[in-house]
Parts: sequence; C-alpha cells; structure tokens
Amino acid sequence: MSNILNTIERPNDVKKVPEDQLPALCRDIRRLILETVSKNGGHLASNLGSVELTVALHRFLDLPKDKLIWDVGHQAYTHKILTGRKDAFYTLRRKGGISGFPKRKESPCDVIDTGHSSTSVSVATGLAKARDLRGEDYRVVAVIGDGSLSGGPAYEALNHAGRFKTNLIIILNDNEMSISKNVGGMANYLRKARMSVNYIDWKGNVEHALNKTSFGARIAQKLKKMKAVIRSMVVPGEFFTEMGIAYYGPVDGHNIAELEKALKAASRIHGAVLIHAVTKKGKGYSFAEADPSKFHGTPPFNPKSGAPEGITFKKTYTDVFRDEMVNIGRDYPDVTAITAAMSDGTGLDGFRKQYPSRFFDVGIAEGHAASFAAGLSLNGMHPVLAVYSTFLQRAYDEILEDICLNERPVTLAIDRAGIVGSDGETHQGLFDLAFLSHMPGMVVMAPRNGAELRAMLRFAVTYDGPAAVRYPRGGKDLEALPEKVSEIRLGRAEVLAKGKGTAILFLGPLGEEAMGVKAILQKSGKDASVVNARFASPFDRELIRTLSADHDLIVTMEEGVRTGGFGERVAAFAEEEQLPVRVMICSMPDAFQAHATQQEIRNACGLNAEAVAERILKDGAGHER
Amino acid sequence: MSNILNTIERPNDVKKVPEDQLPALCRDIRRLILETVSKNGGHLASNLGSVELTVALHRFLDLPKDKLIWDVGHQAYTHKILTGRKDAFYTLRRKGGISGFPKRKESPCDVIDTGHSSTSVSVATGLAKARDLRGEDYRVVAVIGDGSLSGGPAYEALNHAGRFKTNLIIILNDNEMSISKNVGGMANYLRKARMSVNYIDWKGNVEHALNKTSFGARIAQKLKKMKAVIRSMVVPGEFFTEMGIAYYGPVDGHNIAELEKALKAASRIHGAVLIHAVTKKGKGYSFAEADPSKFHGTPPFNPKSGAPEGITFKKTYTDVFRDEMVNIGRDYPDVTAITAAMSDGTGLDGFRKQYPSRFFDVGIAEGHAASFAAGLSLNGMHPVLAVYSTFLQRAYDEILEDICLNERPVTLAIDRAGIVGSDGETHQGLFDLAFLSHMPGMVVMAPRNGAELRAMLRFAVTYDGPAAVRYPRGGKDLEALPEKVSEIRLGRAEVLAKGKGTAILFLGPLGEEAMGVKAILQKSGKDASVVNARFASPFDRELIRTLSADHDLIVTMEEGVRTGGFGERVAAFAEEEQLPVRVMICSMPDAFQAHATQQEIRNACGLNAEAVAERILKDGAGHER
Repeated sequence: MSNILNTIERPNDVKKVPEDQLPALCRDIRRLILETVSKNGGHLASNLGSVELTVALHRFLDLPKDKLIWDVGHQAYTHKILTGRKDAFYTLRRKGGISGFPKRKESPCDVIDTGHSSTSVSVATGLAKARDLRGEDYRVVAVIGDGSLSGGPAYEALNHAGRFKTNLIIILNDNEMSISKNVGGMANYLRKARMSVNYIDWKGNVEHALNKTSFGARIAQKLKKMKAVIRSMVVPGEFFTEMGIAYYGPVDGHNIAELEKALKAASRIHGAVLIHAVTKKGKGYSFAEADPSKFHGTPPFNPKSGAPEGITFKKTYTDVFRDEMVNIGRDYPDVTAITAAMSDGTGLDGFRKQYPSRFFDVGIAEGHAASFAAGLSLNGMHPVLAVYSTFLQRAYDEILEDICLNERPVTLAIDRAGIVGSDGETHQGLFDLAFLSHMPGMVVMAPRNGAELRAMLRFAVTYDGPAAVRYPRGGKDLEALPEKVSEIRLGRAEVLAKGKGTAILFLGPLGEEAMGVKAILQKSGKDASVVNARFASPFDRELIRTLSADHDLIVTMEEGVRTGGFGERVAAFAEEEQLPVRVMICSMPDAFQAHATQQEIRNACGLNAEAVAERILKDGAGHER
Repeated sequence: MSNILNTIERPNDVKKVPEDQLPALCRDIRRLILETVSKNGGHLASNLGSVELTVALHRFLDLPKDKLIWDVGHQAYTHKILTGRKDAFYTLRRKGGISGFPKRKESPCDVIDTGHSSTSVSVATGLAKARDLRGEDYRVVAVIGDGSLSGGPAYEALNHAGRFKTNLIIILNDNEMSISKNVGGMANYLRKARMSVNYIDWKGNVEHALNKTSFGARIAQKLKKMKAVIRSMVVPGEFFTEMGIAYYGPVDGHNIAELEKALKAASRIHGAVLIHAVTKKGKGYSFAEADPSKFHGTPPFNPKSGAPEGITFKKTYTDVFRDEMVNIGRDYPDVTAITAAMSDGTGLDGFRKQYPSRFFDVGIAEGHAASFAAGLSLNGMHPVLAVYSTFLQRAYDEILEDICLNERPVTLAIDRAGIVGSDGETHQGLFDLAFLSHMPGMVVMAPRNGAELRAMLRFAVTYDGPAAVRYPRGGKDLEALPEKVSEIRLGRAEVLAKGKGTAILFLGPLGEEAMGVKAILQKSGKDASVVNARFASPFDRELIRTLSADHDLIVTMEEGVRTGGFGERVAAFAEEEQLPVRVMICSMPDAFQAHATQQEIRNACGLNAEAVAERILKDGAGHER
C-alpha cells in the first residue's frame, strides 16, 4: 500500500489529498477491498465500482454533519475506509468486526442501518424535510443504484420528493446492473440516457442553434411556452424532470473531478436534483469486471485466479433447487419461474437457460413478482417465485391479498431462510415462518435435506393452493444424504427415531442437531424421539396428540423468531388442548442477529445439540405434571 | 328506471343497446348506484365516475373470455350491474349479498378478488403472459386510477410490462384524485398531460410545421435521430413511452364513442398500451362532484341532501384521534403526521389544517411512508403514521427494517384494526397484531375506549422507540365513556374487575364484551376477573403469573387472527412456564372474513359475550389440573 491511504484517519481527511494523488488513493482503496473481500467474502463488484464516487462525495460533503445515505448499503466499503474504519477493515463481516453494511453504532457517518433495496430516497426525503422544519442547514445525499430504481419504493419516494422545494441530492449510480443484469423499461430508458450527450451542453447548444435564425427563434419561443416540452427536448432525464426532480448528467462516475463539478452544480439547485453517474461494476479487478454478477456477493476467493477458496459447500440447497427446477420444468409444462433480479443467487439460472420463455426476471420488485405470479396462475400456469427469505418481506401484502385470498397455486421457494450469517441483521431469514404461517391457506414447509427439498418442491408445484418451501443458505454434504424420502403428505410430520421421555420436533435443517440432542441424552441415560416436522403450517396436530400420550416433553426446534413461530403455535395448541405434556420452545430470540458465521449465531442462540440437550437435562426431562 | 337497463341481463347484453340510448342507460345505472349506496353505504364517487368507461369496455370486450382487472376494485359497481348482478345489486355489501369489490365466486367476469391498490397491472401482465405461453387469444385490460399510480407496485409492473411485446391494454382512469386529492410528481405530470392536446394531432402538426422550411426540416431530421427526444416533444405520455408502453390520449372518459375508438386503436398496437381517460369522480351527483372525498366511501345518506342517515356513530375512534392529534401537535412541536392518501379517512385532516408544514400526504405509498418516517425520526422529529390496518400490510418490510431495526421513535396509528365490516375480506384489519408483534422492539397497544386512545397516543409519541396503537372502525358513545385513564406503563395491563375462577384478558375494544361475559357467568353462579391487556407486545407476563396463582382459567379475547396473535402467545407462555392455569383463546379464526356488519362477523366468530361465556361454561370453568 502507498502512503496515501495511510494519511486517511478521520472523516474529511480525504479532502487534504492533493488532486494528483487521488488515482493512487483509489488504487489503495481497491487493493484493501480486494484483499479483505478475498479473505472474508463480501460484496466486491459494487464496492469496486463506487470508489471514485465515494471519494468525490467525501471531498464534497462535510461528514457527519451532512447526511449520506447508501441504498441497500452493499457499496459502503470505501465510505467505511474513509471514516475511521480503515484499520479495522480486516475484520469485515466477522463476528464483532466491521459489518458489510452501514451501521449507526460503527460511526456517526452511517446514518441508517440498511440492507434492503430502494428505500434511500425515502429516508433522505425524511431527513431533508426534518432538517428544513428544524431550520438546520446541511446537505442530504442519497446514493441509489439503477437496479434499486426498479423497486417500487424508490418510485414512491421520487414521486414525493419531486413535490417540494426541499434540497436533496440523489446520485444515480448507474452500472447497468442490479445484482444480475438490470432489466425493465427503466433500464432501457437509462441505456438511452447514457448514450445521450451532456445536459448542460445540450441545453446551451440547442437553444443557441434555434436562436441563430428568426425562424429558429420563433420555434424556440413557441417551444419554451410549453416548459415540459422544451425541457424534454434538451434533457435526457425527462423521466425525472417530469416528476419534479432536476436531472444532471450523465457524468463519468470514475472521474472524480467531473463528479465534484456535478455535485457543486447540483448543490446550487433549489429542490431535489438527480445526478446520473455512470460506473462500471467490478472496476479495477478484471475478474469482477468480466463477471460482476458472480462477484456481487462472493465467498472467499483467490485474488490471483478469481476462484473460490476456503470452506465451500459441496452442494448447497440452492444447487439442489437449481437441479430440481430444471427437472420440474421438464415434467410440468405449466410451471413458470420468477426471480426478482437474482436468477443466479436463487439458482433459477438453470431453469432460465432451459426454458427461457417460462422464466421471468422482474427486477428488484418483490411485490410485483407476487401479484404477477397470481396473474400467471389465474390462467393455468403454476409459478415458482424464488426469493431470499429477507427480501420476501417486501411482498407481504401481495402474498396475502393476491395469492392467499385468491387461493392461487403459487410456490414460494424461499432460499436463505433461517440464519444467514455474515451479511448480518438485514439479511437473516428469521421472520418468514412467522409472517407466512398466519396467512390463511398458506402451506409452509421446510426440508431437512436436499432430497426432501426436491420432494417438497414437487409437492408444492402440484398442490392446488399457495405453498412455501423454506430452506437455508448453504448446506453441507447434501449429495451424501439419503435420496429416499417418504411421501410428503399435507400437514404430516415424519418420525425419524422412536424413543421415550422427550420428543424433539424439529423444522428444516436442524435434523442433525436434533439427532445430536438424542445422542447426548442417551449418554445421560435418557432417551428421545426425533420427529421431522416438515410442515410449519398446517402442523401435525394429530401426531402431537399421539406424542403427548407417551412423552413428558416436546421440544420444538426452528430457525426463526419465537413470536408467531412454530414452537409457540405447538405450545399454544398443547396448552389449549390440555395435552398431558410439556412443550419447550427452542427458537431464535425475538431479536435482530448481527453478522457472524451461521454456526456462531446458532451457538449464541442456543440452537445446537449441546445447548438444547443441556436445557432439557436441566429443566425439562422427567418433569411430571 | 327506464326500460334500457332492464334489457341488460347477461354479460355482453350492453352491446345490443343502440348508441343513441347509451346516455339513458348510463343515467339508469347511476340512479341504481345512487339509490343502493345511499341505503347500504359504499363507494359512490369512484363508481359514478366510471360508468361510461365501464360501458365502453363492456361493449368492446367479450366477457368473460377477455379479462378485465379493476385496480382496487372500488369502481366495479357498473361492471357488476352489467354482468348479471343487477337484480341482486340491492344486497350490496350486506351479509350474503353482493360484495363491494370484485369476487370470483360472484361471476366468471370477476378475474381476481381485490381491494388493495396498485396491483392490477401486475396481475394483468401475468394473465397476458400466461395467455401467450398457452397460445390463447383474447384481450387483457387493467383499469387503474391515477391515485393508484402513485403506488410502487404499479410502477414495478409498468417497468416489467414495458419490456415485452405482450398485448395488454392499461386504462388510466384519471380523475385527479386518489381518495383524497392526488399528490406527487406523477400527479403534476398527469395534470400537464391532461392539458395537452391529443397525441395524434400533435405528432402530425409539429412534424408538419418543422418540415415547412428547409431549416425546420433540418431540425426535424436532427431531432428525429434522437428518437427519445422527438417522441417526448410530441407525446404527452413520455413517462410511459420511456418505459416501453405506448400512450394514447388523453381522451374524455365520459364519451363512450371516443373511448371505444381509443380501445380499437389500442388493440391494434403490439405490446402494452396505456389509454389515458380523464373522468370526473362523483359524475352525475352534484354532492359527490363537489366533495368526492366525502363520497369516496360513505355510510348511508339521504340522496336528496347528501347528509348521512341511519346508524351513525356519535364519536368514533377516528374522531378521537383527530382531536387528540391536534392537541399533540400543539404540545409536541417535534410531532409530524403522515398519511398515505387518506387524511380525511384517518382523521389527520385536523392536524393538517393546524400544522400544515408538519403534515405529509405521500400518496398511496405505504412503504415509502414508513421509510420516510424513519428518515424524519433520524433527525429528531417524531412522526405519527396514520394508516388503516389492512393497508399497513404494504409497509411490512419497511417497518421491520427501517423503523424497528433502527429503533426509530415512530408511532403507527392503526385505524380500522380488527373487524371492519361491509368492505369485506380485503379491508378487515385482522393481521396487524400478528405481523407487528413479531417485529423486535415494536410496542403494540390497543385502547379499550376513546380516553385510552388519547393516553396511548401520548405514551407513543413520547416513547423512544417504535410503537403502534391499533383501534377499531367506528366505536359507540366514545364521549360517554370515562375520561379518567390510569397511567399507561410499558407492558402493563390494567385489572378492571377482580373476581375468581376465570380471568378474562381482553385486547382493545372488547372490554364491554368481556364485562358481559362476567355478568353472564355471575348469573350461573360463577365469577370472573376482567383485565384490560392494553399491550399485545410486550404483554404483561408478571400479571399473567399472578392471575395463574388464583384463577383456573385465563380467557384471552382479541380481534385478530389466531396464529401469531395475542392469545397464542399468552397460551405458549403459560405452557412453557408451566403455569397452573388453563388458557382459552378467543380470537378470530385463521380465515378471511367476507362482508357483513361488524357485529354479524363478531357473532359468527363467537367473539361476543354470550358465545365466550357459553364456551367457558361448557368446557372451561371449574377445570382442574
């Protein structure tokens, strides 16, 4: 590393860097990011693409007095490095270390903890409005990617921000990508805008040209009368100006001088202004430039070859889903597949390649995805909507109203359900069990291994109603597990091991831990039955009645918050039915979970074999009613 | 009624009506709507505004082969009258009668059950895509209001639909209103578009003018090179065309011939096309034209005077909220208020008038509203977001991520929580208890009367974190109730009556029913304690422990679904803690509730004094463990 980055200790230090040394600074930052992410994993391409943009912003703004909001937050590494977190940066995404997303407790320069897309303009509008109401004076800037712009909340916010004369700068960080290649009408629109020449030049040139002759002058005057028309003629950002937001650009998002100039110009405009900055995702690292989607979120890799390194999963749940969706697409011509900008991440890329006409990438637009699925299903198709658990939250209302109320045969394939790990609070999939289970008619399943995932997917795509299959991030040795699966029957659990005293009723991938509990209990001279719940909703009430007859204790295990979760429902059932058994709930607590490895989080929450066994031995087993 | 409407018995009958008799038909339809809504209550203004549009659509389409999707669905009365439901229309919104919203079980012409805004284009896109995949041939039309267009899902859908060459007609029913006056950049944009002359004429005229001279021709050629620019110069619908959707309009939405012409023209376009129809909300009824917001959703009224009639509430919870927000605005200068297009419906109109600078109507955009609130609160303001329970569902993710994760002091004022009545399935507020209670850090309260609503609001706006107050639609004699309220303390319930045997723990407005249970039990020689739970989250665990010591049975009462609700959590707590008491849950079932009066639904679900008392006497009281 050169000496330049070493001079950056505190916020605003970057302003002291001489202009001619900025390229060296950016090189240093990229090197630090590459070095760290190749070891710890993380978001590489988006961060490499926003180095100059961040440097320009930090030179222009006065942090933390000015407020800088990063949409999603997966591009804030440079921001962290420039605001006193350079030396701790090697702890990125590790337990107790620097988070991969903005975190208020890390720095006053981080305005809001984020991780989900398309809300930065909303938050910035609120900050700016509050500033004006309080008579304060500072800048508010939101940085939003073109991918995030396909999300409805961003549009709702632009629609609102465009109404009032509240000073607000929106940087459109346009890299032609969301996580996959960006899609949709807006993407086409931005493509055209990128190709157009600069706004300022245009305005000058066209007016000048028209005014050259008397006829031209007349036309110019005529057109000027219709402000909207004249503006749309010279400004490529018509979409934004029509909504009341001034447009500036496009500018080169890797040219710091040009960016600073744009920021200065924007800050002279009264009201909301959007700067259209064009950047390259993965900039400066050839492998990431060539395949930005692969290096969006990446596990540790060899920086020389770009190849994954360290702990990698043999075959993940996502891989199993990928395979099986190809098979299902072959066996069921009515099955369609939908992703919200994550065809690679969810494993729908296999289906996409095989059955392109039945595959839909709707962009970052989970709410639309759910209603669109309802529409497809109303006409005889069976859509499989593959979404990460945490992002499915965006579609809560549409799932409830358009899918459940209308009893639509739609499959929700929920990846990254449960503990997710290093991405932290905003990416854990801890709420889907609770929020799906109270939706009338929604079937909620969780497979205990890859083979069961296949079987449950086939159950879901042939079921005449809404059904969700939730499965975790990763998964180990999924190919080594038994390929035989007993028939999946609606609402029926599967007894894996008969025992006595305690019955352990686990959901999804906690089967191994549940078997571990039994083994530990046996060492202490106790025993246990182990039951694979399979269905969180409807759950197997009949089996619970049966278990209550010859067990003292039922222990539930699930990777989801306690409130409204599986365990609470089993306990409430046992309580109200006055079953002669005690229920012990082992779930995640009602709390957000910071970044750490999946197992670290599991251990901290007592959701492993040892902790559960200990709890049973301490206050559960042998209990008499 | 004239004879014309009598000739309409089945779908497509309207095609046989001679053109010169269409005005008479529309008059008949308006008369029937006015007559029915004045008796039964319902959505008046939106339905009066869409009579000609519906007639034109039904003359153009072949129903039910063609698919017609109504956004929200509160403008489908004419559609119902024209599709075999004319004679049953007098049962509108009554138990077992015609629903106020599209319902698949009523007619094959109703494509999807709806009630929430901004999803029609998503559903239509799905239907159209499925049609093409199946090689079928018919038309798909979505009708969406300009208010619904401020909702993010509509934008997400336009962004998607604009991508492919799938035939789809979108009617923009532009009445310059959402429920209140429509706001936002999009509204301004549409205003300009309305003022512009017809698309077709413009295109011809401008090109013609430019080509008149050689200089003009040069300019025309220059501009033509930039397709986007030339198009934006001549087309008022630039916003849509930029997204890949052809634009046609504006057309007079009360001129059937013009509408039919537009539909024919649109059906010749390959891909998605939007017809911009300008209508007048409340058309044909002077009181509704003058005050469309008042006659959006209306209780029964005298058609001659426009004044409300029949059962009206003395002072509703909404009225109390209106009053108290004015007081709170005076006492707390940091309090701001946010509505999503419902300042009258939620009662924020009082605050708006008193403190206009601290009031924000964001349009139909609940997700943005929540993130915007988080932004305001990040800069020292305390926002009160007033939303109907059912519409709050749209903001699930934003509440969880931007408000709860960031521990924001934001108050959610949730009106229409619990059973709502005649609006039916899509408008009941049965899920908020379940979905808010599992959000970490969210406080959830329910007042038992107006005075407690005031106290809880004051608790919430001074609480340093997210807090929700949920209160029901209507409310009787709220002024007659005691004005004294014991101090609201976080997570603490209030014992209203000491008794023995049974403890009734009710949430919110069920206090009267709970006292009724006690009275009935006393007649049978039993007794009961009655406890006002106040907090659904965190609930009063200490008191439940105390109650379990000297009661046999705890009965919970709440107006919300069972799964994930208050009762289940109390039962699970008692079960896991092995409290020496039985818990009986009286909640709404896990089901959608069709339209009927609030009390009819309450009775049907056994959530009244008699039913609960009967259940206790039958299988609860005197139970020994």
